[in-house]
Amino acid sequence: MFRKLFSPEEARQILKKSFSPKPVGVERVPLFEAHDRVLAEDITAPIDVPPFDRSTVDGYAVKAVDTFGADEDRPVALKFCGQVTIGEPPNIVVENGMTIEIATGAPLPKGADAVVMVECSIRRNDTIFIHRPVSKGENVMEAGSDIHKGETILRKGQRLASREVGVLAALGLTEVDVYKRPKIAVISTGAEVVEPGKPLPHGKIYDINAHTLSAAVLECGGEPINLGIVPDERDQLEAAVKKTLDLSDAVITSGGVSVGPKDIIPQVLNTLGKPGVIVSGIAIKPGKPTTIAKINGKPVFSLPGHPTSSLLMFHMIVRPVICKMAGRTEETSPMVKAVAATKMFPAMGRRTFVMVTLTRDKRGMLLASPVPTGLSGAITTLAKADGFVEIPEEKQFINEGEEVTVYLFQGRSLSSLF
Amino acid sequence: MFRKLFSPEEARQILKKSFSPKPVGVERVPLFEAHDRVLAEDITAPIDVPPFDRSTVDGYAVKAVDTFGADEDRPVALKFCGQVTIGEPPNIVVENGMTIEIATGAPLPKGADAVVMVECSIRRNDTIFIHRPVSKGENVMEAGSDIHKGETILRKGQRLASREVGVLAALGLTEVDVYKRPKIAVISTGAEVVEPGKPLPHGKIYDINAHTLSAAVLECGGEPINLGIVPDERDQLEAAVKKTLDLSDAVITSGGVSVGPKDIIPQVLNTLGKPGVIVSGIAIKPGKPTTIAKINGKPVFSLPGHPTSSLLMFHMIVRPVICKMAGRTEETSPMVKAVAATKMFPAMGRRTFVMVTLTRDKRGMLLASPVPTGLSGAITTLAKADGFVEIPEEKQFINEGEEVTVYLFQGRSLSSLF
Repeated sequence: MFRKLFSPEEARQILKKSFSPKPVGVERVPLFEAHDRVLAEDITAPIDVPPFDRSTVDGYAVKAVDTFGADEDRPVALKFCGQVTIGEPPNIVVENGMTIEIATGAPLPKGADAVVMVECSIRRNDTIFIHRPVSKGENVMEAGSDIHKGETILRKGQRLASREVGVLAALGLTEVDVYKRPKIAVISTGAEVVEPGKPLPHGKIYDINAHTLSAAVLECGGEPINLGIVPDERDQLEAAVKKTLDLSDAVITSGGVSVGPKDIIPQVLNTLGKPGVIVSGIAIKPGKPTTIAKINGKPVFSLPGHPTSSLLMFHMIVRPVICKMAGRTEETSPMVKAVAATKMFPAMGRRTFVMVTLTRDKRGMLLASPVPTGLSGAITTLAKADGFVEIPEEKQFINEGEEVTVYLFQGRSLSSLF
Repeated sequence: MFRKLFSPEEARQILKKSFSPKPVGVERVPLFEAHDRVLAEDITAPIDVPPFDRSTVDGYAVKAVDTFGADEDRPVALKFCGQVTIGEPPNIVVENGMTIEIATGAPLPKGADAVVMVECSIRRNDTIFIHRPVSKGENVMEAGSDIHKGETILRKGQRLASREVGVLAALGLTEVDVYKRPKIAVISTGAEVVEPGKPLPHGKIYDINAHTLSAAVLECGGEPINLGIVPDERDQLEAAVKKTLDLSDAVITSGGVSVGPKDIIPQVLNTLGKPGVIVSGIAIKPGKPTTIAKINGKPVFSLPGHPTSSLLMFHMIVRPVICKMAGRTEETSPMVKAVAATKMFPAMGRRTFVMVTLTRDKRGMLLASPVPTGLSGAITTLAKADGFVEIPEEKQFINEGEEVTVYLFQGRSLSSLF
């Protein structure tokens, strides 16, 4: 049986038309658990930061006008009237001719509009000699100069790293609305796969995809629900996918979609609900036997059984959908420009993805070298790769030295590349 | 009181001499919880992957020698003797003149040494006509060709992303030794700080550092133990740090280390154990009042109270130590080369760090633009920055268009930059 394969663009177009993936919900979390979550509300500052005019130096709070004309030889004499330390509200008002000692970070007393650095003053009993003039506002951090009360300082969709968590703390917030992690069911199928830890009969292999796909779901902000191995039999698969659809926001299966007598996944998906299968087969190498279905409004992705193919298809097709469900704005893998270390050939008439390792040459250029393979079943191919290069259908080959875009796998430390 | 400041190199040198930070322990975790942890054992393959010779195509298992000379016009006729499907051990032996139908991924039957693709054959009842010769091993993935039994396939210190988890699964492993997360105590101090959520009296500000530093500890693989705000009083600080040292592998305090009458942290640290303070003050802007102590063999880092300074010092001084304690090999922040968008000036005689935002210009060059500041207390400065540029002490300025290295903050999505 031959059928027309979908181009990756057609597949993405159909996916886009069939689903508008959006965040699956909102939950309120304490600030200490907000790290790495995605903000589900705009944050409007309830207070000014800093909440009051602060001194940025140790020195003397003054009326700036009193210091005009002061210099090394002819200092201005001001009357010492007490001190304000950090964290204590001042109860003295600075009048003309007066000054108050002030510590870095302490609130500026009323009446004062500038601070003279301690290095520019000399104290003699209750008289402070100022040797340099200051202008209004000098050495003062004004109330609201960092964040204005009422300002929208963080926006819905922002991911909360240490700095953003700091902004929330500065505003005195202890809880924040974040997007719920979408629940993504992961099912492995195939007569040949056995769960790790169990004895391995001849002819069988350990299931890899349940683990790689669960980890990949975590990496894009989802919560994997691992359902282990479901036998490649119609009734059992149908029951498993049906149950799973109730538990989760999306389903990923792997294996059981190659062309053969056991290729029952599309039949199962068409049975479970309308419209059923919307994409069957994508003209990509590796990854051709990829099926996408829509059942009860939820996406079901059936990826190939080969670990490299399934993880590549996850990056190409599934990742953008999960990212959107998790409220993340980034939709594609990070990319770098590199230079092909050798000639690379595509598979005839199919968009081809070549796994590559990145290194730097002597001139500091990033070099993309294909990971030796031919075996799309090889998990080590994937483990050695830093990312992949896309070769368009119409291209005969990529020449040595040609510039290529490398899509980087998540979780690969990039420090060594820069 | 004036004292000589340490250069960043001197500080790092003393730190290196005083500590050899190493992983704090090992724990065994199930494979599904191993994602993003650091491997604490070398993994030697207990089995071959694949565990048997597998067909990589749908076709016919043959003795290659039988197909020699076959072509379009003169096919070789072989006797059909049954089939092997995926996941089932074959019980037939292929002799000369015989062939067995085989599915992709199925184990090669004994006697066979190659597979003819189904597209290159025609079946007439029990005779299979082969139209193309195959060489020995063609369309076969040999046992152990992906991973050899006995091969060291993953090494101590590797971080486990989705691909590495896949390798462990392929080997049938269900548990793995990973490094324990070091427990890092975080204490805020200072008379002016108030815990978020509490009312804010005049002259006080909300505590930011407990939150930013805890999140930063998480980002480098540590487990933060947040101890909140400890009053800036000698007895209370002494009791808090003492208790904390028993609970944790390292302590970070922030605030209370600027020069002033309340600068009691160094005194407290010198009281608690030998050698006490080993670095006091680093010639860096911002971040000068940084103190490092060694107490009972554990490091105590006292960072400045200003949020930008404390997080910068965390990246420069603390992060490499926590990374090593977590078993991570990366010690520095990732870096990119960029071009200065404007002239940048250092502080006289001090290594200066300028917070920058990265953008791409029309030619695709990365531009580093300083985040407008002057206020090292400003949390927004930090929230807007993608990273920082280091200006050496001896440099007068960095010119517009000059190449700079930008140290990237963790948690900043880089997708938009590439």
